[in-house]
Amino acid sequence: MDIAALRSAHPDHWRRAAAIRALTLDAVAAANSGHSGMPMGMADVATVLVSRHMKFDATAPDWPDRDRFILSAGHGSMLLYALLYLTGSPEITLDEIRNFRQWGAKTAGHPENFLAQGIETTTGPLGQGLANSVGFAIAEEALRARFGRKIVDHHTWVMAGDGCLMEGVSQEALTLAGHLKLSKLVVFFDDNGITIDGPVSMADRTDQVARFAASGWHVQTVDGHDPEAIDAAIRAAKDSPLPSLIACKTHIALGSAAQDTAKGHGALTDPQVVADAKAAYGWEYGPFEIPADVKTWWEEVGRRGAAEREAWAARLETLGKGKRAEFDRRIAGAAPRQLTSAIRKLKKAAVEAPAKMATRKASEAVLAAVNQVTPETFGGSADLTGSNNTRAGDLGVFTAEDRAGRYLHYGIREHAMAAAMNGMALHGGVRPYGGTFMVFTDYARPAIRLSALMKQPVVYVMTHDSIGLGEDGPTHQPVEHLAIHRATPNTLLFRPADLVETAEAWEIALTQEATPSVLALTRQGVPAVRAKHSAQNLVRRGAYVLAEAEGKRQAILIATGSEVHVAMAAKAELEAEGIGTRVVSMPCMELFADQDAAYRRRVLPGGAVRVGVEAGVRAGWDRWLLGERGREAKADFVGMESFGASAPAEVLFDKFGITAATVAERVRALL
Amino acid sequence: MDIAALRSAHPDHWRRAAAIRALTLDAVAAANSGHSGMPMGMADVATVLVSRHMKFDATAPDWPDRDRFILSAGHGSMLLYALLYLTGSPEITLDEIRNFRQWGAKTAGHPENFLAQGIETTTGPLGQGLANSVGFAIAEEALRARFGRKIVDHHTWVMAGDGCLMEGVSQEALTLAGHLKLSKLVVFFDDNGITIDGPVSMADRTDQVARFAASGWHVQTVDGHDPEAIDAAIRAAKDSPLPSLIACKTHIALGSAAQDTAKGHGALTDPQVVADAKAAYGWEYGPFEIPADVKTWWEEVGRRGAAEREAWAARLETLGKGKRAEFDRRIAGAAPRQLTSAIRKLKKAAVEAPAKMATRKASEAVLAAVNQVTPETFGGSADLTGSNNTRAGDLGVFTAEDRAGRYLHYGIREHAMAAAMNGMALHGGVRPYGGTFMVFTDYARPAIRLSALMKQPVVYVMTHDSIGLGEDGPTHQPVEHLAIHRATPNTLLFRPADLVETAEAWEIALTQEATPSVLALTRQGVPAVRAKHSAQNLVRRGAYVLAEAEGKRQAILIATGSEVHVAMAAKAELEAEGIGTRVVSMPCMELFADQDAAYRRRVLPGGAVRVGVEAGVRAGWDRWLLGERGREAKADFVGMESFGASAPAEVLFDKFGITAATVAERVRALL
Repeated sequence: MDIAALRSAHPDHWRRAAAIRALTLDAVAAANSGHSGMPMGMADVATVLVSRHMKFDATAPDWPDRDRFILSAGHGSMLLYALLYLTGSPEITLDEIRNFRQWGAKTAGHPENFLAQGIETTTGPLGQGLANSVGFAIAEEALRARFGRKIVDHHTWVMAGDGCLMEGVSQEALTLAGHLKLSKLVVFFDDNGITIDGPVSMADRTDQVARFAASGWHVQTVDGHDPEAIDAAIRAAKDSPLPSLIACKTHIALGSAAQDTAKGHGALTDPQVVADAKAAYGWEYGPFEIPADVKTWWEEVGRRGAAEREAWAARLETLGKGKRAEFDRRIAGAAPRQLTSAIRKLKKAAVEAPAKMATRKASEAVLAAVNQVTPETFGGSADLTGSNNTRAGDLGVFTAEDRAGRYLHYGIREHAMAAAMNGMALHGGVRPYGGTFMVFTDYARPAIRLSALMKQPVVYVMTHDSIGLGEDGPTHQPVEHLAIHRATPNTLLFRPADLVETAEAWEIALTQEATPSVLALTRQGVPAVRAKHSAQNLVRRGAYVLAEAEGKRQAILIATGSEVHVAMAAKAELEAEGIGTRVVSMPCMELFADQDAAYRRRVLPGGAVRVGVEAGVRAGWDRWLLGERGREAKADFVGMESFGASAPAEVLFDKFGITAATVAERVRALL
Repeated sequence: MDIAALRSAHPDHWRRAAAIRALTLDAVAAANSGHSGMPMGMADVATVLVSRHMKFDATAPDWPDRDRFILSAGHGSMLLYALLYLTGSPEITLDEIRNFRQWGAKTAGHPENFLAQGIETTTGPLGQGLANSVGFAIAEEALRARFGRKIVDHHTWVMAGDGCLMEGVSQEALTLAGHLKLSKLVVFFDDNGITIDGPVSMADRTDQVARFAASGWHVQTVDGHDPEAIDAAIRAAKDSPLPSLIACKTHIALGSAAQDTAKGHGALTDPQVVADAKAAYGWEYGPFEIPADVKTWWEEVGRRGAAEREAWAARLETLGKGKRAEFDRRIAGAAPRQLTSAIRKLKKAAVEAPAKMATRKASEAVLAAVNQVTPETFGGSADLTGSNNTRAGDLGVFTAEDRAGRYLHYGIREHAMAAAMNGMALHGGVRPYGGTFMVFTDYARPAIRLSALMKQPVVYVMTHDSIGLGEDGPTHQPVEHLAIHRATPNTLLFRPADLVETAEAWEIALTQEATPSVLALTRQGVPAVRAKHSAQNLVRRGAYVLAEAEGKRQAILIATGSEVHVAMAAKAELEAEGIGTRVVSMPCMELFADQDAAYRRRVLPGGAVRVGVEAGVRAGWDRWLLGERGREAKADFVGMESFGASAPAEVLFDKFGITAATVAERVRALL
């Protein structure tokens, strides 16, 4: 690569882009870790994009109508931090750049959305940013359909590397975007031909441009170091009625000794290598030093959008009062006041006419009521609409032709669905929920984890939550999945027992601000267990006494979801023998853990044996059975210790011993 | 669709294929559940493939050189069961067909490899079979390179639907196959244009043929109901030097009222619908009745390969003695005798020269020794070779040009890597291991679960197993993942503390017959903790007393992996205060659970408080801290309760309180 030629061809551009490269070299050297090569390779594309095309105002990084910049190749985080610092972010200061990758810094190893505004999403796990971006673009379309082009009209720009494109989730994401013709989504592919193990050709011979074209994308290939070519490609992308891929031929770790090598992917920390690269750039400044002309130019870029933002704010004032209130409320992520009354009404009706019902059907009934009062909900399913019962309440279908629809047929794309929902939630203004079978949370696991890490209140509607799904067999029967979601920090796993608990769980899920919810719902019918109406949301306490012991309390049965009625039947059996038995319904362990010790003690007092029952593995249960520090109670657990099997549900519960008789027997054995 | 025209064009073929369709209709109706449409749509392709091309001998379904038939669209399981029954499987009898989806039947809702021979893999989770098939084809190439074309020369045939191709894992799998030019892999795409929610066009506009072509596949499109066209396509696929896609235009639920509709995907159980479909087929027989001429013809197909198998057996006799023994041993899945001595030698050397070392480096040292004595190992990494330390022992690299290599650069394809390893293990003759970061087991989770469900001894080399990886931050730091693997049935999660334990864990992993292993290995250096050589494999007991209390035992510290030395330091602190403290190393909870009660009691006796320490969440620990039924001990746990952060490792351990001081403090609080 002839750096001198690049420098002389566009001397001003060169210096501005070199600032990104130099900051990257300095920060990585100071941290003695990080990834230098990507920012060094993509600095030209970033400079052209941000300075000539991106709509933003550095002083108001939360402007709802800003363009979104998604660094899917998150290891190149210094590219993003450099851009934020240079354009005048109030949060990503030079001190933060100096503290790259240190405890308490906003400049984490990989971008973390909750550390500073302008970091639109958390990336690092490859392909996630790209898949998030589809959700950002969907949210933009959905909000524009609702509030008009004068209020919502922005682009989503993505930088993705070979790693992002090699991950399977990229295929789900790009085919979904192509299908939906998300024309305001533009992906820059950092086509540098290098991965960690070596040249891409060691592991792949895919024609990425042909692949995107095969799914309805507008595609271009450009020299990623030629600012005018990049600019022209971006203009063409903006004009296209399709989502756009711009494959940028770049040199990883441009201008360094490690250029075009796998070594260039990682941390360039050798002082001589750093010095030589800077010399090649003609960069004569000290570490972390940005010459005033360059900094001033970048800061002007950062302020360029201010007028546009003010004009937007003026237009916002012209929105009708109702629309304006809705817009503000949705952007703030607040639930509508009507939600609580809708839930309460439904609960009351449920108690008045108790019926055996699958909780997935209960969820459908809740959605039918809720979707009418929450215009921000955006539902969908990964090709299991009729099984997940996620389409309810006349939402309309979101398609390439109709952006007003609030239901999306995601196709057989669990992973992209979850990642897109993350993108929608991050974008704001939309509250996404989506369904698949509980066992297939496995397919979406990286994105579900990121919902929790990114503090996004996505709702996962996971039906077919145990062996109770029957004949489809062990490939479809979750056994360890309740434990998996409970083991994941900042995740609420709800396993409601009937329609009332399902309604309460939905109410909690839809009012979360920073926590995703996983609803575990049955395929099979279950009897109603809540016989008395309570205006209070009992699920909010995580666990509560569903039925008190008659006479002296000798046993406490703790159950969730479809096993609550099993516990109730066991109680009846035990009470008939004079064994006073309390039944505790525990729809959400995480919320119960958050209660004060006195409440927990009231629900689970000492002096009685305890048996837990749930059609899943025991992991995560012992805290409630045995107590955190032990010695609380003698206890046992009735659940699954192996994978399931293919047979009718009732046969399976019997064969695996998840029955009232087993529960009663275990109680007797403990007494 | 003009069924009459199809019938009259190829009357003999029609009747033979109709037998598959009729058995499907009958079995689904009897079970009152299942999926009728796929077998009805693909019966023609299956009939041509099996009768004219597939190399197999129904009487010897374990013939190592048989062609493999992979039903990736596993919901169409009746297609496979019908073929097995018709061709004379000794296991899939008519009774089994009648018991479709019932308890104890070999004809589970989705095919399960361990229920009957001829079921080559477990499918249902979409895309898995397709990704398995890449591993089958790799194993075939690898074994042919070792034993010659006379011994190993067979095809892998796959049937995949829209669901399989829409899943992200399909992209990883097909690009890997294209890159490796796996020419003996042929995929039939059941291109029926229908998914569960409706027409494919509701959710996708991908040109699948163009997509495969973009990754170096040979591609064709045929009428999936024209036997001669199918035959010609298969011939062309066999002649191609590339993996081959045959897109078969088919009609789901052919000939029924539900043809070409989403309804046709599921169970056709209405008696009239079933009767009408049979009438359209000209099928005048009773339920489960196959006319003698058709059954005879199929049974001849089933025996057609017998002569070829006998000729193969004769050729096998001509293999040299050493090669023959190796072939037999590898097909039997037995480890070589030299493995134990190699491990023992390494352990001895480790104890003699103890060194601080990351366990990922320890793993590399083990592999360097082990790969020399186990020609069946086949290693790889998802583009993290230098970080996972998986390439050791001069394996050579498996490429399109060199099939003798035993190391594969999987690219950034964790999911396809895991699924391909499943395929290799299922094929037999190869023992796969593969690496990525522990947190990215999330990306491969559906396939890792299937390793366990399918009883395949795949080894997952998962490095960077905690916050100890440092600056890369929470997106890369596993917190809940040890718990996830432990919660999964039939999975061994090893977290070795040093080189000796790592060697022992590898020995166990490489001698498993029906259980996958996940090795959790550190990025950071850890001191050696095993000071004394033991010929016995102590990890095999799951947990053992690493250091006994001096004087009266008041506390037991239980630790794994990189926290064992933390426990040792805490012990030193406590002993200095006169608190006798035992340290138990617990590298594998699953193996410890399998020990008899007396041993478990010896390791974890009563009468002392217990503190567990592990840089992960508590889930799964309480059984060892509190006892299964409670009241065993007062106990506490030092670990993670949130996601990690980006900072140097030592800072993180300090900030999150995973230190000897914290452990000692918790002990004091309990006493």
